[in-house]
Amino acid sequence: MRPPTPTTAPLAGLRVVEATSFVAGPLAGMTLAQMGASVLRIDPVEGAVDGGRWPLDRSGRSLFWAGLNKGVRSVALDLRHAEGQELATALVTAPGDGAGLFVDNTIGRPYFDHDLLRSRRDDLVHVHIQGYADGRAAMDYAVNPRYGVPMLTRHADLDRPVNHVLPAWDIATGLLAISGLLAGLHRRATDGSGSRIDLALADVAAAHVAHLGWLAETEEHGHDRPRLGNHMYGAFGVDFRCSDARRVIAVAITRQQWRDLVRVTGTEEVFKVLETAHDVDLDEEGARFEYRALIEAVLAPWFARRTAAEVLRATAGTRVMVGEYRTPREVVEAYRRGEESAVLVDATAEGRPPMVTATSPLRWDGRYPETSAAPRFGADTEWALSGVLGLSDREIGSLVGRGLAGPHPPTTYHPTARRSVS
Amino acid sequence: MRPPTPTTAPLAGLRVVEATSFVAGPLAGMTLAQMGASVLRIDPVEGAVDGGRWPLDRSGRSLFWAGLNKGVRSVALDLRHAEGQELATALVTAPGDGAGLFVDNTIGRPYFDHDLLRSRRDDLVHVHIQGYADGRAAMDYAVNPRYGVPMLTRHADLDRPVNHVLPAWDIATGLLAISGLLAGLHRRATDGSGSRIDLALADVAAAHVAHLGWLAETEEHGHDRPRLGNHMYGAFGVDFRCSDARRVIAVAITRQQWRDLVRVTGTEEVFKVLETAHDVDLDEEGARFEYRALIEAVLAPWFARRTAAEVLRATAGTRVMVGEYRTPREVVEAYRRGEESAVLVDATAEGRPPMVTATSPLRWDGRYPETSAAPRFGADTEWALSGVLGLSDREIGSLVGRGLAGPHPPTTYHPTARRSVS
Repeated sequence: MRPPTPTTAPLAGLRVVEATSFVAGPLAGMTLAQMGASVLRIDPVEGAVDGGRWPLDRSGRSLFWAGLNKGVRSVALDLRHAEGQELATALVTAPGDGAGLFVDNTIGRPYFDHDLLRSRRDDLVHVHIQGYADGRAAMDYAVNPRYGVPMLTRHADLDRPVNHVLPAWDIATGLLAISGLLAGLHRRATDGSGSRIDLALADVAAAHVAHLGWLAETEEHGHDRPRLGNHMYGAFGVDFRCSDARRVIAVAITRQQWRDLVRVTGTEEVFKVLETAHDVDLDEEGARFEYRALIEAVLAPWFARRTAAEVLRATAGTRVMVGEYRTPREVVEAYRRGEESAVLVDATAEGRPPMVTATSPLRWDGRYPETSAAPRFGADTEWALSGVLGLSDREIGSLVGRGLAGPHPPTTYHPTARRSVS
Repeated sequence: MRPPTPTTAPLAGLRVVEATSFVAGPLAGMTLAQMGASVLRIDPVEGAVDGGRWPLDRSGRSLFWAGLNKGVRSVALDLRHAEGQELATALVTAPGDGAGLFVDNTIGRPYFDHDLLRSRRDDLVHVHIQGYADGRAAMDYAVNPRYGVPMLTRHADLDRPVNHVLPAWDIATGLLAISGLLAGLHRRATDGSGSRIDLALADVAAAHVAHLGWLAETEEHGHDRPRLGNHMYGAFGVDFRCSDARRVIAVAITRQQWRDLVRVTGTEEVFKVLETAHDVDLDEEGARFEYRALIEAVLAPWFARRTAAEVLRATAGTRVMVGEYRTPREVVEAYRRGEESAVLVDATAEGRPPMVTATSPLRWDGRYPETSAAPRFGADTEWALSGVLGLSDREIGSLVGRGLAGPHPPTTYHPTARRSVS
């Protein structure tokens, strides 16, 4: 009864319903699907609010939507109408051991109210993603500035904070939503209980900044940490310009990484003399941070005399952490040359050539899971009404005929084709 | 048998062993502990490699370590010695329904080899966190440049890429490790199987950049997206300087957000005329992106005539997303004034005043979980040897006496007190 190599995906047999949009919720749903769950996304018949989110392909279809909804089933219902709302509630609370799992980020939709849903399925495990914990809406780009990140992401002499481009809190919120859902499922398997789990994007930002010690630090010392430009904090790490104008970052957090960096660059004697002259022990990570400008200056000529490729070759097999700065285009070129991790894959999408995207980075028994494409918007509506709710062909025909189920217009998810990226 | 309000934490009864350091693994362990699991972290007797990671408090203790190990038990073993290695393996593979859960990020430690561990407990669920999927080490700061983020985090006229300060991929990796562990636990409850789950930091970066459509976009259009400075991509969002020299970001992704932004700033007539003059419909998010410079210029005077507080008051209750730029110090000040989310809390730490940190952002039945402090390094070694492995006082005495268990030196985790932040 204990197969050493399981033949089923870890979440096979589970059915998750999501009513979410943008990054966090869809990422949660897609990641659950990549672990084998059947995931069903509900949207309004008139289109998903993120169905046209940039980046777009040349015909105006959203690559964002195609990337974040892979392997998920798309159900479109008229959520302004009581009958459509009842179908949505019924999908969320449908019976079945592996069902009764719900992720939403909706505001002001009474048919997705937790207590109502629990009155129809008392063991529902429901993760409700919010902006702020008090229920107000928020988005990553508006939350990130509130927790100090752009104020630290800049050079000391730059007046304006620098927004980073990655929606990091959205990603963290989506992944944490999965943890909550699976923890609630575990408890349900133990004692049969349902769970109400709330998770606010702003709380995710606040909590992780606090976990990292950023808040305790400023209170402890009475002032904010210095703005560091491209230097990392608390150890040595900064970017260097190579002879071919490419840049690499070199990082030495541990003592071993530092010693290898000094050895590889042939600067042992230099740093020995400097340590004596300044009475400092650069084997300590904090000392390397305090002397970062000097270390950078000593190492820079070594990088400046080598191409990035030569630097990578010289540091390969050492403990120095080196990373080359690449644009997304250079990542794709490396992928097409077969030099990237197998987590990157091509996925076909209906009506267009395959696009480069990714499977789940979680490898099970050494293998990345297969990747499906994102569905056409609303494509699985009839499947859900029939397969999950057990409606008859006649009932489904009536719903579709009256416009209560299925996309409007029926086959596109992006209402207007747009021009190329400017 | 279905308590409407469960009285136990969702992961109560589970025991997780972690052999990790820095951000990803400890964040996974701590988050599991915050959901009720008993989490036991194993480190070498001579100290955790991240035990002195900055930020530090004034007495040189690591606020990083204190922030990322809250509620986890600390076990110190001599891992260079066969007897210490055997204790570590025994802790990982100890019997019990809720045990047999392991997260590690070690390299080259044969006693944590997956096949060896599975030979001792065949239903072990083991998440192995890596740098690269081929086993090479990596860290967030060295991986992030490889996947395009710092190349896009900058103004178009800035030659040098800009590193963002947040270890976003570390955070994502830690949270995804939890998803893998709980998915493996679910499968084990279903069919009794163990799981080998590998998760590489570099794959997490590659996959999420690909999920967001960044890679497909550049291949589709044959060039990288423009570098945007502080503008968000694909819709309208940028920072504005207020009359008190504070900055706020204003974001309008959806049509409703845009219309509220125009209404609140009294610019309806201006944009109506501009839309006619330029033959553009700014209700489309992509058009707002293409005309971002013009929109910014039209709106700027409204912000420049108001303080940040006045901007926040004027936009409260509307759908416009506004966020004020704050430093970590300003976040703490707001927390001390009682204005921050209850996810931020004070936690006591042995031998020093309480520090501001955070509990889990996952709220269960409307409540944030309680937070414990991080343990003293090695403080739970004897508890683990006795409570988990069932060793006698005499056996434990011998192990401690021979230096094979328990911290060296016995009561500190940071070997040398250091000066304040420079």
